[in-house]
Amino acid sequence: MRYPNNLVKKYTSEVNYKNRGMNLEDDLNSTNKYYFTENIAIIYKKPTPITIVKVDYKSREDAVIKEAYFKTPSTTDYNGVYKGKYIDFEAKETINNKYFPLRNIHKHQIEHLRKVLDHGGIAFLIIRFTKLNETYFIEAGKFIQFVDNGKRQSVPIDYIKENGYLLHEKYNPRLDYLKIIDNIYFKEDKYEKH
Amino acid sequence: MRYPNNLVKKYTSEVNYKNRGMNLEDDLNSTNKYYFTENIAIIYKKPTPITIVKVDYKSREDAVIKEAYFKTPSTTDYNGVYKGKYIDFEAKETINNKYFPLRNIHKHQIEHLRKVLDHGGIAFLIIRFTKLNETYFIEAGKFIQFVDNGKRQSVPIDYIKENGYLLHEKYNPRLDYLKIIDNIYFKEDKYEKH
Repeated sequence: MRYPNNLVKKYTSEVNYKNRGMNLEDDLNSTNKYYFTENIAIIYKKPTPITIVKVDYKSREDAVIKEAYFKTPSTTDYNGVYKGKYIDFEAKETINNKYFPLRNIHKHQIEHLRKVLDHGGIAFLIIRFTKLNETYFIEAGKFIQFVDNGKRQSVPIDYIKENGYLLHEKYNPRLDYLKIIDNIYFKEDKYEKH
Repeated sequence: MRYPNNLVKKYTSEVNYKNRGMNLEDDLNSTNKYYFTENIAIIYKKPTPITIVKVDYKSREDAVIKEAYFKTPSTTDYNGVYKGKYIDFEAKETINNKYFPLRNIHKHQIEHLRKVLDHGGIAFLIIRFTKLNETYFIEAGKFIQFVDNGKRQSVPIDYIKENGYLLHEKYNPRLDYLKIIDNIYFKEDKYEKH
């Protein structure tokens, strides 16, 4: 059987196999659920911020939102607590193979990460290059350093490789980003001992 | 001039004067904005969790949510970072004068606060008795102790007074709850020195 575009077809099935059909958000939700169940950390994705304009109240339980709009997020998507420390991060995917385009992240979110660092929190980004099927962890400080110093509109994958960490996908937890946090911030202990 | 119910009228104007028309959520948003602007802490109210069923996409910017439902929150409303520590709390109002009814708070939220404590976070509740115009801070541990030990469906205000702290309303910040956290958790330093 022939397809109009063999390359695309091949790529699609390969990614589906490796990812088991999950996108980055699914992987992180599954990972956070694992951390929760195993009593390792409490980390949640925040609800999508919206402005509610119209609600129909049939009864208190049956309220239906009939008109609402998506708001630009002023913070990141994920936060929580690990070993008493405040954890805050943003997760992004790009179909680009060589660069992470900065237009993929809101300025407010970068400023938020900067503020979190100022207040002693642990802040980072998880960036997936979907076509390469590679997911990286990069500390917010390193990421912000590039944004502040560079005049470029995108972060090269090489910068991310040099300054970040490859997150190997596993069955469970899917993306064990707390292992990296252990290595950076809690060298003396491991969450397995928790 | 006479009113059908003098007592209620008197109460209403008194509360309006003291509160300047603000409810607890407004007061906390204003307080958190102050903390943000003065670079004291980063604490946000999470967006309301909803399930989106139908969205009209005229264009990417003009997406209109046409059908959505409120979800039962599995976490608390407020979290953030202060002096590196994870902060998590729930804020509730009651029109009751003597008790805080436990049906005002979801079981999931109490379990969430318990989990936050397990992981070394700072967890508490802010409870306003609207008719008394009194707002209290109570540590989650003390609150949960009552829930666990008692067989009662409501927490007496006397328990909250004995085990919590009255939050005096000021112009700015409206409800300086971090001052209490300083006294409990950071006795050696004050946020003024930050």
